[in-house]
Amino acid sequence: MTSWSKAFCGKRVLITGGLGFIGSNLARTLVAAGARVSIIDCLIPEYGGNRRNIAGIASRLRVHIADIRDERRLPRLVRGQDFLFNLAGQTSHWDSMTDPAADLDINCRAQLSLLEACRRHNPEIRIVFASTRQIYGRPDYLPVDEGHPLRPVDVNGINKAAGESFHLLYARIHGMAATALRLTNTIGPRMRVKDARQTFVGLWIRRLVEGLPFEVWGGDQRRDFTYVDDAVEAFLLAATRREAKGAVYNLGGPPPVTLRQLAELLVEINGRGSFHVRPFPPDRRKIDIGDYYADDRLVRRELGWRPRTDLRTALSDTLAFYGRELRFYV
Amino acid sequence: MTSWSKAFCGKRVLITGGLGFIGSNLARTLVAAGARVSIIDCLIPEYGGNRRNIAGIASRLRVHIADIRDERRLPRLVRGQDFLFNLAGQTSHWDSMTDPAADLDINCRAQLSLLEACRRHNPEIRIVFASTRQIYGRPDYLPVDEGHPLRPVDVNGINKAAGESFHLLYARIHGMAATALRLTNTIGPRMRVKDARQTFVGLWIRRLVEGLPFEVWGGDQRRDFTYVDDAVEAFLLAATRREAKGAVYNLGGPPPVTLRQLAELLVEINGRGSFHVRPFPPDRRKIDIGDYYADDRLVRRELGWRPRTDLRTALSDTLAFYGRELRFYV
Repeated sequence: MTSWSKAFCGKRVLITGGLGFIGSNLARTLVAAGARVSIIDCLIPEYGGNRRNIAGIASRLRVHIADIRDERRLPRLVRGQDFLFNLAGQTSHWDSMTDPAADLDINCRAQLSLLEACRRHNPEIRIVFASTRQIYGRPDYLPVDEGHPLRPVDVNGINKAAGESFHLLYARIHGMAATALRLTNTIGPRMRVKDARQTFVGLWIRRLVEGLPFEVWGGDQRRDFTYVDDAVEAFLLAATRREAKGAVYNLGGPPPVTLRQLAELLVEINGRGSFHVRPFPPDRRKIDIGDYYADDRLVRRELGWRPRTDLRTALSDTLAFYGRELRFYV
Repeated sequence: MTSWSKAFCGKRVLITGGLGFIGSNLARTLVAAGARVSIIDCLIPEYGGNRRNIAGIASRLRVHIADIRDERRLPRLVRGQDFLFNLAGQTSHWDSMTDPAADLDINCRAQLSLLEACRRHNPEIRIVFASTRQIYGRPDYLPVDEGHPLRPVDVNGINKAAGESFHLLYARIHGMAATALRLTNTIGPRMRVKDARQTFVGLWIRRLVEGLPFEVWGGDQRRDFTYVDDAVEAFLLAATRREAKGAVYNLGGPPPVTLRQLAELLVEINGRGSFHVRPFPPDRRKIDIGDYYADDRLVRRELGWRPRTDLRTALSDTLAFYGRELRFYV
């Protein structure tokens, strides 16, 4: 029995981006905990939403196919909810550079509209926002703690930083109960594997399962990886712990590895497969952040969270999932 | 003869917010220097634009009454220009809290649209952006240098920080020639005096000229003040000096004073008048930044800029201007 498990029984919970990777895993846990779950998802093909992600629980929650940019719909959606898990977002760094206005409208403008809707129509709602390590930019030091300067290297990082700032501002000025979690690479079942828009690991896994070689760009960058079940637990803890109101926390994972080590481990677990290491394409290098891994001592200390899943288990479970499910995700 | 005076002769210059306080003073200097000046201004009543600001030069420049949020108009406006002085903005901190979406659309979204229009239609244009000390929030230390963390205390600060970040990102990633100036309180002829939306000093001056007492909130906060002619010179230097490309600079002024000292000096220069000191209203205190004054050594060293106008002269000239012109500004 975990500390949060009773907190959601019978409660009304809204999840934006709820057909996406983390959102749907959160929805599954909340449905199992007896929550009355509603999902908003726009199902834009380039984003993370996929109806398959709620297979088996679709009859036990409500799905609104809606775009959070459509602000007129927001008041009705937030009214009466006890919790808002705000995970809707555009995640591709590259797409944010080629279509910066779309990234802004989703990651920045719609976040403010959603907060305004909550402030006006449901100011008591408990909010947890999915932020990202991308807002730090290239780290000055490692591991990166929450006090590290924010110097985003791409449009996505600028907009996510603004979106996060709005949440913390609404907590500070309007007294709303909002928490931001700065996620690092999150992996696990239901991640986007069609391409690298959510994380490059998704594309690696797809290629491995398809029996094709995959590409590793660079290879020496060190990164940390959170298993999705651990990320879900962090959202649930953040939503229920008083200490988390108005706070921002990094999430980390098991000890960081280089991308080359990650690729080797994936091939080893899969039992077969291969990859090519190639130099980072010059265009992409400009927005690459190099080494990153989180100092997540604050969330461990304040909320008692810790990553429970080691990297080998995380990758095994993910590979096994896509071994069965790949056809629904490509 | 100043170092920039020849750089603008015959050049095409676009000024957003060009009917506003700093924009119109910049336009006057550029017209005198022989530039072919175009102005964009939306003349929203709550903002700084005022047709009186171009009295005497109206026939020597082009005025487009347009809103930079109307992105379809931007390509034609930026095409063929040599310089863009980007000063359009919503400046009221209070209004940004009561109508956050409007603040976002002007200070954040429209800035990105303008940069995209430049990137696609005029990537060689030289851009100087009017940023603000508001993005620092409450200072950790004084004076505040450019390396101080950005922790905005209101919606305006978050959006201005994002707007500035877009400019610096477009310089870094797309190689565009953009500079950001972080302005502190700027004062002088053509400032908004109708109310405190641009700066509280405007309202003080209006009341003094009208023979009415004015209110000082708090009184012990130390602040610095840039005279508008000095601010104009900084924009012109930033536009013409190679070192400024991709850079961000604080602008300061003569040594800082407390608001009470400023009020006393204003009354003394005016020869009559009075003020009441009252506690900061609780609502407003939440978004007040307390003491602020800039460390502007970087712009002094790299661009050779310095504030030439002492505070007494700045206030005298401003009072004299509104002594003659008040009826056009209230």
